[in-house]
Amino acid sequence: MSENRGIILHGPVRQKLSLLALLFAVGLSARGETPVEIAAALGHTMRTNSGAFEIVRDLTTDIGPRLAGSDAEKRAAQWAKKRFEQFGFDRVSVETFPLEHGWARGEEKAEVILPSPQPLVVTALGGSVATAPEGIEAEIALFKTYDELLAQPTNSLAGRIAVVTEPMIRTQDGSGYGAAHRIRGEGPAQAARRGAVAFLMRSLGTDSHRLAHAGETAYETKGLRIPAGALSVPDAEQLERLAARGPVRVKLLLTPRDLGSVTSQNVIAEIKGSEKPDEVVLLGAHLDCWDLGTGAIDDGAGVGIVMAASKGIHDLVPRPKRTIRVVLFGSEECGLWGGKAYADMHKADLDHIVIAAEPDFGQGPIYRFETGVANPDEWTLNQIRFALAPLGVIRGENGSHGESDIEPMAGLHVPVVTLQLDGRDYFDFHHTADDTFDKIEPERINQSAAVYAVFTYLAAELGGDYRAKASVEAKSIAP
Amino acid sequence: MSENRGIILHGPVRQKLSLLALLFAVGLSARGETPVEIAAALGHTMRTNSGAFEIVRDLTTDIGPRLAGSDAEKRAAQWAKKRFEQFGFDRVSVETFPLEHGWARGEEKAEVILPSPQPLVVTALGGSVATAPEGIEAEIALFKTYDELLAQPTNSLAGRIAVVTEPMIRTQDGSGYGAAHRIRGEGPAQAARRGAVAFLMRSLGTDSHRLAHAGETAYETKGLRIPAGALSVPDAEQLERLAARGPVRVKLLLTPRDLGSVTSQNVIAEIKGSEKPDEVVLLGAHLDCWDLGTGAIDDGAGVGIVMAASKGIHDLVPRPKRTIRVVLFGSEECGLWGGKAYADMHKADLDHIVIAAEPDFGQGPIYRFETGVANPDEWTLNQIRFALAPLGVIRGENGSHGESDIEPMAGLHVPVVTLQLDGRDYFDFHHTADDTFDKIEPERINQSAAVYAVFTYLAAELGGDYRAKASVEAKSIAP
Repeated sequence: MSENRGIILHGPVRQKLSLLALLFAVGLSARGETPVEIAAALGHTMRTNSGAFEIVRDLTTDIGPRLAGSDAEKRAAQWAKKRFEQFGFDRVSVETFPLEHGWARGEEKAEVILPSPQPLVVTALGGSVATAPEGIEAEIALFKTYDELLAQPTNSLAGRIAVVTEPMIRTQDGSGYGAAHRIRGEGPAQAARRGAVAFLMRSLGTDSHRLAHAGETAYETKGLRIPAGALSVPDAEQLERLAARGPVRVKLLLTPRDLGSVTSQNVIAEIKGSEKPDEVVLLGAHLDCWDLGTGAIDDGAGVGIVMAASKGIHDLVPRPKRTIRVVLFGSEECGLWGGKAYADMHKADLDHIVIAAEPDFGQGPIYRFETGVANPDEWTLNQIRFALAPLGVIRGENGSHGESDIEPMAGLHVPVVTLQLDGRDYFDFHHTADDTFDKIEPERINQSAAVYAVFTYLAAELGGDYRAKASVEAKSIAP
Repeated sequence: MSENRGIILHGPVRQKLSLLALLFAVGLSARGETPVEIAAALGHTMRTNSGAFEIVRDLTTDIGPRLAGSDAEKRAAQWAKKRFEQFGFDRVSVETFPLEHGWARGEEKAEVILPSPQPLVVTALGGSVATAPEGIEAEIALFKTYDELLAQPTNSLAGRIAVVTEPMIRTQDGSGYGAAHRIRGEGPAQAARRGAVAFLMRSLGTDSHRLAHAGETAYETKGLRIPAGALSVPDAEQLERLAARGPVRVKLLLTPRDLGSVTSQNVIAEIKGSEKPDEVVLLGAHLDCWDLGTGAIDDGAGVGIVMAASKGIHDLVPRPKRTIRVVLFGSEECGLWGGKAYADMHKADLDHIVIAAEPDFGQGPIYRFETGVANPDEWTLNQIRFALAPLGVIRGENGSHGESDIEPMAGLHVPVVTLQLDGRDYFDFHHTADDTFDKIEPERINQSAAVYAVFTYLAAELGGDYRAKASVEAKSIAP
């Protein structure tokens, strides 16, 4: 993919002129148009050139990798703060929070020692302990499914490196990841219970490249902690072939470090509402990323989408009645710490959040509008659905629990929506060195930014209420 | 890609029976069929299940990476010798030759120091000298085309790391590689002339993954030798973006070693001709591969194609009149040393080689039959063209100079043909860690093995003469 060479208009004046020109062109009056008409024009303009592509380019180039709690993540926060200030947003701030355990990747090497010496591509799982400095060499015990590992008795894997090669299935909605996710989360602890000296798994990924997929694991509080890594998909398949031929000895070296207590931060910026500034439409995305790539897909794309959507509203249409708040969270990847800290620090304020949304599943396009509200048939939601249809977005169910960082606030009864991103190729790149800017496609991310702009503008302008009152209504309708 | 679970019939008896059954099924008499009819049945059978897929699987699994002159390459030669003996071939031998400079990869690391610290994916070019043990840190001088580098005056790059980011174009026939090839071959020498302390180039590849493409470079005999590496395509693009913003400092560490004099070897196996054993149809492929992957595409596929094609002829059809000789060359990647050694050691015997062919451009499918003979309209070539058409192979021009290892003998007037492999995705994997077995697709490699079997059988059976006599004929036709 080459970069988009299209020219972005800079400065609100030229852009508002450009929108006016568009409104006339599509036969609308520049004055007196309805919110849905304004949203339609906004979506139409942004779909061609939203600025999201350029935001991802700058974040991934000027900062690069930005691991939770790292200096790079702090630089990313300052970068975002400055960018919001340049946009002319209100109340731009950085909120610091503590992170109990910073973690830094070290060396990572694996190789087959017997029967046929060859290197294996491996990466340490997030939070993994290190091997001895000289590495661990042991025979492997290979399981083609995670359930096979779980079926092994206690201590039956003594002295072995446990290897789980269960594949992850490609789906549009990420359900394949959901199904295989426990292998990474619990696998090392379960292997340790059975006496294994280390744990290796086939990467949670849908590609077939020699690139391993990172991601957080969790040990049991009182359990033994063994080094844990993910192999690239071709390497996991190679171990399957070798294990089918006889015993396989593997040497593993991982030297990650627990950095102890560090800090991370959320960046917050607002477009103050013109009539109801205390009512907030919240957009989230996360600034941190795994360190192997530059986090273009996860979650540079989300950052680009929400920054571009809010900037589009700021620059191109009359200021909406409610406040739009953008939160770029820190330390999502290692345990939703930014989202938890935000919900905790703003507990008293959560009632003011009318609705929240976060893109954290790649660049799109967005194909479905899934609500997580008390009253999915409320009239403003239907207005939003009507406005999203020309962008190719269908009505969803009411099953959203919010994406990643807004889950903690959704758990505290903040209404949420999920604008579902097409994630068919998301796990080809997710958490790998391959998550870089060249994977971003202008047409895809522009559509997503346009959808976010339309949703956000209408949620901030139309005055819908998606919680208390509606719950009462729902109850009264019940038999 | 999953593995082919199809069952291969073992043992010549069952396979010959199976062919007879096929011949009856397609309405041919089992006796008295013409060579073209036999070839058609052979191609038809092999196209479904040639055994090539399984040969590549075993070579890449049992041996893995097999760098020129290495112990692994020696193990691969023994593996191939044993396999040919199991096939029941005649005169299986290993011919050793010296390699003046063995070379082994060491550590390889590159990172941006300024403006935004981030790792770069790099691999040393084959033959590169090492950096100092602590690495080289310097500002880069980036050129978007190689010609820009060449336009710089002597010593103008003093103290800089020269970076060339010229892209390579994707084509079906590999011409994009041909056009960009000089950057890797001569770039380090040209950069050294201009005072550069190191040389980095965008990988010669058509993918966009964080995997660097290895490959041989050559220094000038009396010139300064500077460390030279290839960056992955996304990393080269990242440096372009960074360089557009201002000065970029890069740190490079490469620790390859010159191993001095080592040995390599060619493996030779024959199916002795039934009537004209001194006339030889020669099939080549190379056993060595770059060490980052397991050489499935380059040239495990070629090994699989020629081993399967010759085994198919051996097992499935009446023994042809001429001898079929398969040569699996060593040390192709670092300078065609196996091909040169073979031509040199068998100089006196080259006149007996009727025709030679070598697949060294991936798994196929094969789409064109390109000759490199004195008499392209000779009648047996037309018979071969007729027999190849049902497999989807068109007539080519007469422009073949032979692939890789058979080039030296072609230079000594051995007639050659190129059965052109479709290389559209070849440079996505070529010389990278991604050149692994999972990339092999049964339908593609089976078609290629079937084409080779049909060509080889007919060249060995029909008695065509593609050199001396024909040249005389050609002369007599000339005005």
